Amino acid sequence: MLHFELLETEGRARRGRLTLNHGVVETPVFMPVGTYGTVKGVTPRSLEEMGAQIILGNTFHLWMRPGLDVLLQFGGLHRFEGWRRPMLTDSGGFQVWSLGEMRKISEEGVRFASPVNGDRLFLTPEVSMQIQTVLNSDIAMQFDECTPYETKGHVTTEDEARASMELSLRWARRSRDEFGRLANPNALFGIVQGGMFESLREESTASLVDLDLPGYAIGGVSVGEPKDEMLRIMAHTPQRLPAAKPRYLMGVGTPEDLVEGVAQGVDLFDCVMPTRNARNGHLFTRFGDLKIRNARHKADERPLDESCTCYACHGCGTSGGFSRAYLHHLDRCGEMLGPMLASIHNLHYYVNLMREIREALDEGRFDAFRRRFAQDRARGIGD
Amino acid sequence: MLHFELLETEGRARRGRLTLNHGVVETPVFMPVGTYGTVKGVTPRSLEEMGAQIILGNTFHLWMRPGLDVLLQFGGLHRFEGWRRPMLTDSGGFQVWSLGEMRKISEEGVRFASPVNGDRLFLTPEVSMQIQTVLNSDIAMQFDECTPYETKGHVTTEDEARASMELSLRWARRSRDEFGRLANPNALFGIVQGGMFESLREESTASLVDLDLPGYAIGGVSVGEPKDEMLRIMAHTPQRLPAAKPRYLMGVGTPEDLVEGVAQGVDLFDCVMPTRNARNGHLFTRFGDLKIRNARHKADERPLDESCTCYACHGCGTSGGFSRAYLHHLDRCGEMLGPMLASIHNLHYYVNLMREIREALDEGRFDAFRRRFAQDRARGIGD
Repeated sequence: MLHFELLETEGRARRGRLTLNHGVVETPVFMPVGTYGTVKGVTPRSLEEMGAQIILGNTFHLWMRPGLDVLLQFGGLHRFEGWRRPMLTDSGGFQVWSLGEMRKISEEGVRFASPVNGDRLFLTPEVSMQIQTVLNSDIAMQFDECTPYETKGHVTTEDEARASMELSLRWARRSRDEFGRLANPNALFGIVQGGMFESLREESTASLVDLDLPGYAIGGVSVGEPKDEMLRIMAHTPQRLPAAKPRYLMGVGTPEDLVEGVAQGVDLFDCVMPTRNARNGHLFTRFGDLKIRNARHKADERPLDESCTCYACHGCGTSGGFSRAYLHHLDRCGEMLGPMLASIHNLHYYVNLMREIREALDEGRFDAFRRRFAQDRARGIGD
Repeated sequence: MLHFELLETEGRARRGRLTLNHGVVETPVFMPVGTYGTVKGVTPRSLEEMGAQIILGNTFHLWMRPGLDVLLQFGGLHRFEGWRRPMLTDSGGFQVWSLGEMRKISEEGVRFASPVNGDRLFLTPEVSMQIQTVLNSDIAMQFDECTPYETKGHVTTEDEARASMELSLRWARRSRDEFGRLANPNALFGIVQGGMFESLREESTASLVDLDLPGYAIGGVSVGEPKDEMLRIMAHTPQRLPAAKPRYLMGVGTPEDLVEGVAQGVDLFDCVMPTRNARNGHLFTRFGDLKIRNARHKADERPLDESCTCYACHGCGTSGGFSRAYLHHLDRCGEMLGPMLASIHNLHYYVNLMREIREALDEGRFDAFRRRFAQDRARGIGD
């Protein structure tokens, strides 16, 4: 089940509401990434409290561990990981592609050795749909080939990108057929490919639209291409997708990328950046980014961001609200609480940024919001 | 400031109430260990929610990092780490003792090289009191020499234990004098030493009681001695300390040790076991211990302990309440949420055990509680 309602638009930017089997998602929205059935370093409670509406799970990883037998026994991923709100799963295509020389792609699917136990495995559009049906995610993604930007220094040619895009289209049809055969009660999204070539992206879009899927994603971005190439595709493809259906930009990106993506008409985003950067001491704030490892924070009594209402910055009434000095100390000592608080803060920053974007769209002031956002981020975190 | 009220007794076991500068502590109590200004793997909020009343900080570690300048700027450890309730700090003696050949002990104090940056440092009773005054802990501990059970296979002789105990007594007097000179507004505890020799423990006790300190600890246990030796000292020393003052058994122990300690008249405990074991996948439950890494848990839908009300077992209304299968999966994948949930559970187990002990003492049924506790723990976690 998927119902998408377009509430407001401003330029290409869209304010919408997505109704899924496990609940309602206000868009534009950022989806925290929960690869192995856990958003790294945070509890489901923290995610709920910061206002996360939908999280992502990785089909490939969950297939490896804990495996389908356990997930089937639990009736899907929701109960296994203790997350009651909507969930999206990818198809596993990106992960098998990332295995590099460990895998072999054919028309039928991808053969590879399990990185966990070496088992010979075969992932096809049909298998991906079968796994995602067991996971019972609210949004399943078609199995696709993620067209690389370059391979060992060789930049993908138009012919190569076309062959890859056409393979993904054939896999989209097989995904749709299998999803229907399985009577999966959730929603299947198609994925636009075509590399850095607008004409291929348009062909891919047209063919996917013919399949009349309930939503569409833009794939094959944030795969190592220069930033201007990514921005060019972001400016090209989203607006060409059906206005009445949700649009998902896969694997993007920085706070600036999210604001730009919204301006180009994107509704859903996911990225590991807030959690991964948190674990490396890279923190996002309204007034620019901050490296907590830097000695300048050693005795700084201020929170990361005085305007932030997360547990790390603001606390929860009786406790919390930590200084930069304390976070610096935790990082220096390798204490687990460091990445825990940093993950809460960064995810809260992303989730809250999207909330502010939605409020701006509700009030018809997204353009002013964008300018203010750029000014604030350029201001710096203070000395 | 310290006020101790003895509310109930049953045999040697005591139910008390300790009023300190940062609040009231119901005893017997377990103190989670927060070495570097953080109880490893849990937020202050979790500690408050599970009912932790007082936590421990390590003077030696905090002196190294973040250092006294930062702690002085924050007005002590409470504000630095965001913990508003009472706190106890050790003296640093145990940690410099643990440096082994890296340190040199003299009458004056202990010379050693900083394990963090190699600086030549000198820790004395006076320096320990100065640091603990900066930390502003509710309970400070005298600087002592922790008498080893054995050194490189050589079991400490009575003469060696006497010399060490007498040094600790001289350091107790210097600690008391410096604590007074600094006008520290908190409470200083003395530490009974004497190794495994009852007569030395009695001499140590008598001399410390002459100093009329507001509380006393039993040190030099849980330092590598056989279990029966530890139980012998636990059965000997606590009952000989002044009845009107709180008694603290340092660094002990298993759940069984805590129940035995209470039965012998101990009021305060600390131990790294709940947090350290949590990080190694060793979980405590009412019905015995559990190794989450064991393959038997792979598909087990039950919580760790069905009678437990912690976030990991029971959740918090809208989220949480995780299965053994999920915790097993997190452990296998090396996901941070694994030790996070395990730490919450183990600490909650310890804190809740002490709450149950207090309730039993309030109702005059501690003896029955002890029998039931032993039966439950022997029952096993189920197949």
